[in-house]
Amino acid sequence: MEAAGSGSLGLGDTQPPGTARPGAAEGVVPMKRNEKEVAKEGKSVGFVLVHAGAGYHSESKAKEYKQVCKKACQKAIEKLQAGALAVDVVTAALIELEDSPFTNAGMGSNLNLSGDIECDASTMDGKSLNFGAVGALRGIKNPILVANKLLSEAQKGKLSAGRIPPCFLVGEGAYKWAVDHGIVPCPPDIMATKFSLSAFRKNRRKLELAEKVETEMIQTKKRREVSENTNVTTSLDTVGAVVVDHEGNVAAAVSSGGLAMKHPGRVGQAAVYGCGCWAENTGGHNMYSTAVSTSGCGEHLVRTMLARECSVALQAEDAHQALLETMQKKFVHSHFKASTRSCGRAVVGNRRWCLQASKPYKLNMLDFCKMAPCTASDGLPSYSVFCIF
Amino acid sequence: MEAAGSGSLGLGDTQPPGTARPGAAEGVVPMKRNEKEVAKEGKSVGFVLVHAGAGYHSESKAKEYKQVCKKACQKAIEKLQAGALAVDVVTAALIELEDSPFTNAGMGSNLNLSGDIECDASTMDGKSLNFGAVGALRGIKNPILVANKLLSEAQKGKLSAGRIPPCFLVGEGAYKWAVDHGIVPCPPDIMATKFSLSAFRKNRRKLELAEKVETEMIQTKKRREVSENTNVTTSLDTVGAVVVDHEGNVAAAVSSGGLAMKHPGRVGQAAVYGCGCWAENTGGHNMYSTAVSTSGCGEHLVRTMLARECSVALQAEDAHQALLETMQKKFVHSHFKASTRSCGRAVVGNRRWCLQASKPYKLNMLDFCKMAPCTASDGLPSYSVFCIF
Repeated sequence: MEAAGSGSLGLGDTQPPGTARPGAAEGVVPMKRNEKEVAKEGKSVGFVLVHAGAGYHSESKAKEYKQVCKKACQKAIEKLQAGALAVDVVTAALIELEDSPFTNAGMGSNLNLSGDIECDASTMDGKSLNFGAVGALRGIKNPILVANKLLSEAQKGKLSAGRIPPCFLVGEGAYKWAVDHGIVPCPPDIMATKFSLSAFRKNRRKLELAEKVETEMIQTKKRREVSENTNVTTSLDTVGAVVVDHEGNVAAAVSSGGLAMKHPGRVGQAAVYGCGCWAENTGGHNMYSTAVSTSGCGEHLVRTMLARECSVALQAEDAHQALLETMQKKFVHSHFKASTRSCGRAVVGNRRWCLQASKPYKLNMLDFCKMAPCTASDGLPSYSVFCIF
Repeated sequence: MEAAGSGSLGLGDTQPPGTARPGAAEGVVPMKRNEKEVAKEGKSVGFVLVHAGAGYHSESKAKEYKQVCKKACQKAIEKLQAGALAVDVVTAALIELEDSPFTNAGMGSNLNLSGDIECDASTMDGKSLNFGAVGALRGIKNPILVANKLLSEAQKGKLSAGRIPPCFLVGEGAYKWAVDHGIVPCPPDIMATKFSLSAFRKNRRKLELAEKVETEMIQTKKRREVSENTNVTTSLDTVGAVVVDHEGNVAAAVSSGGLAMKHPGRVGQAAVYGCGCWAENTGGHNMYSTAVSTSGCGEHLVRTMLARECSVALQAEDAHQALLETMQKKFVHSHFKASTRSCGRAVVGNRRWCLQASKPYKLNMLDFCKMAPCTASDGLPSYSVFCIF
């Protein structure tokens, strides 16, 4: 089984893998250039990396997943070429991923236990360090737009009467805020696709069967025999992207319909600070700019705060080794994750691109998604992490 | 102005301040004893520390705040004496704090922009490292009960058909889950008190005035003059508690009605993992058990992940110094917090109790609440952090 649904497009000359990471002095001084000038020159103006989520990717849909990723990259690159900043570019990429009926985000998201779609999304701007998130949001086709709007509104400072602007809204309140801020609502039944409805019906049958079997077992006092075949199928997880813009700013974003048959109101890592995405420009204590997007079972990713942990690891001198160690020690074998009595498989690779995004930047990219199968044959949940630094 | 509303009660002999912190080998091996035996002996069986929240504490209500804290401590101690574990004891303390009409949690919480009460709460068990949280929850008198129930249900393992139990529920879904799990709903209008309704009406007038002034300024193109007097008043912040039980397990919990006049659906640090509370037993990489509960402006506490940062600091050899440095570097002067263009005041003290909770435990307690005024005369938001280690 191969991990489909991940893609990357960089604008600029690529360097061969293994090129030494440049020192901070060499690669990280922000370049102040007129955005239009950058666009006119048609030169390399940034970097985009998108993914369509860890989880089960049907071989038969590999083409569609790749197309979605390519389209998301292209849209993001158009924005970069027009001089947009990273936080808006990453939103543009996510909108494409959400609009696809093949991903578990926005349109075609997993349905919850009640047959409704409730989405989580968040974004972080490495420049301002602002964060915006929505959880359990219904009736909005592009939850990432609301997260982006929360972030940009917070950037404007306090609200009237000294009120602190929210960075995290959920449920009905989030929906109303979105509509009040000009985001067009979407009738919930439009967001469910043929594929997501069919998966919901199958999962509902499995659930009914499992509950019937459990009731019988309680009555007959038999021990429960776990059969993976009766388990609810979550086909895909959180989608996401990381971006570097022409100024060298980084941004990250994630969006998710959440686990199939989740309880209404359940919020996963895609909405939780430090867990779904992380972005920090260089400066202060940071030698390098980092942006991270995670995908997999939300509960585990929350408990291990994986996005932020990866970002911290990427500041190490040997970032690659530090990231591998972080994934092993702070995720795969984390005592925080273990206590849910459920194990998983982390997708950690060592593929490395080094790209020169736009002089005088030299950026090194780590892609931890394509190196290992995203879904194991034993049906264990899988995870992927996208990082740039 | 003095910081009222914080209290601590330890069961057992106290050691004088300045006693050296015991090594892990000396004080942290879990003791397996029959709970009833412990209760019968009537010996020291743990430690409880509660707080009624940072923020403005009216001098005239100091007596009530202290009484609430004392009652919460007493209830928790009764549970400890009955042999309950830390995670249930901390819930018992929080229920008392939530039931008080004087705190901004549960009954008498701040009203939001729509005049409704929406609460956040979370709890963490240092033994299992499980976490339960609710956000923007309406119609439940004791949100901490739902958070505790989420935690204990997740501890039972997977749900039918292999579904992963939720650890974080929000809004209507959280309400339904609570009621389905036997938690009695409460008519929302009962939760508003005379005091919270009066504060809401005052704040609404301030808001109307501020918006009128702003509209006039836009029309006349005058620059906005910030007047603190026209700001919405948030009288009190998140309440919380930290507990050590007779086995040496730690637990922490927080509960909050959130900011006054917040947008419906806004979720603050009291529901966010790593931000509102943190608890970790000794073991693994931890030399010491730690439990932390934070209070203050949710957005700042989220962005700095303060509860977890404090817990990490408490593992240092000189925990006191490390905690002071963490509060200064990672909170007061954090570049994550600064970007909201709003400053605050952190309440960091050096008062130290050393208590022998129950042989063979030797526990050192740090209380960072009572040492400095919780509300400054300049009206800046204030923060407090309760830690034990």
